[in-house]
Amino acid sequence: MNTIITIGREFGSGGRELGRRLAEELGFDYYDKEIITEIAKKTSFSEQYVQQIIEKNPHDLFPITVGHSFSYVDSYALHQKQTIFTEQDNVINEMADKSNCVIVGRCADYILRDKKPFRIFVYADIKSKVERCIKNGTAGEELNPKKLAKHIKKIDKQRRSYYEFFTGKTWGDKLNYDLCVNTSSVDIKEFAKHLADMFKDAEK
Amino acid sequence: MNTIITIGREFGSGGRELGRRLAEELGFDYYDKEIITEIAKKTSFSEQYVQQIIEKNPHDLFPITVGHSFSYVDSYALHQKQTIFTEQDNVINEMADKSNCVIVGRCADYILRDKKPFRIFVYADIKSKVERCIKNGTAGEELNPKKLAKHIKKIDKQRRSYYEFFTGKTWGDKLNYDLCVNTSSVDIKEFAKHLADMFKDAEK
Repeated sequence: MNTIITIGREFGSGGRELGRRLAEELGFDYYDKEIITEIAKKTSFSEQYVQQIIEKNPHDLFPITVGHSFSYVDSYALHQKQTIFTEQDNVINEMADKSNCVIVGRCADYILRDKKPFRIFVYADIKSKVERCIKNGTAGEELNPKKLAKHIKKIDKQRRSYYEFFTGKTWGDKLNYDLCVNTSSVDIKEFAKHLADMFKDAEK
Repeated sequence: MNTIITIGREFGSGGRELGRRLAEELGFDYYDKEIITEIAKKTSFSEQYVQQIIEKNPHDLFPITVGHSFSYVDSYALHQKQTIFTEQDNVINEMADKSNCVIVGRCADYILRDKKPFRIFVYADIKSKVERCIKNGTAGEELNPKKLAKHIKKIDKQRRSYYEFFTGKTWGDKLNYDLCVNTSSVDIKEFAKHLADMFKDAEK
């Protein structure tokens, strides 16, 4: 069975950087935005549409109905959304079956639970996350620290909502992960190197 | 400044083993039960009495009073308890000032917060903790798995209560730690080895 590392992460915590560095150190495939591209290919929707559906509050995707009173339009939109989520499951499972890999986000820890991935959660205090976003220009350079903090909290609220809706588990609850790394104080580059060594040793 | 590693841990999660292995790999001093011994020496109380006070629900140590209605006995007992907690602070600070070290338990992460220790929290699912306790004979061999699980939860409740009373923070909340390790799936020996390498590299 392939070695699969999944990364859940707070916005601005450097989860993507940790994932990328781990993949590089280990020579593993790395999947992040590539998941959206693959879903778009399989569903013939645009990448923008797939992204929009995936990032939307999942509760909006399943309207409350009384007596099957969907309109045709609602029902069609719902069907499209369900198609996207089914394909997300397929794409992530195919990636995990293909080779050793690191997968960032997309509830991969839950989707792949039967394949026993090594599940990492990356987090940081809000000050560090704001600083990282400013340094990397992640959220547009026009945002001041106060607005950035608000933006980060909004994105994390969406991630929490998405994760909890689809998994029934609490996003960021340490019991759902094998390792939780606080990048306010842990050096990502150094940590990735030594964690990668642990995986290399395990493969020997 | 010395390198200080503090370990918070759930009962039966192997936190002590991780701490001991890290100290061995790094050649650091290791403090666990030694803290109780030192407090006993400094206060002239017996180790048993110190242990008993420290493990008791902290809320019992500070009785609610109306109009300073302490009895002499209550007041004397309270004074003894406060002495023990003051000495705990002193002992832990002295240990941290003496040399590089690993300190297990005793809210050391909070007591030493100005010295910026590297704070690890070790946890596991209840099944793994029961298995570890049975394997190590930690909680007496007479306990069956169901009773052991109850015992583990009781001890963890005491630890939570103790930590939260003295620090005002949530025990096990990942934001209070730099790294949280789930020993249900992480091999303690291997992890200690590679984490120790990270500290060795940082000292170079």
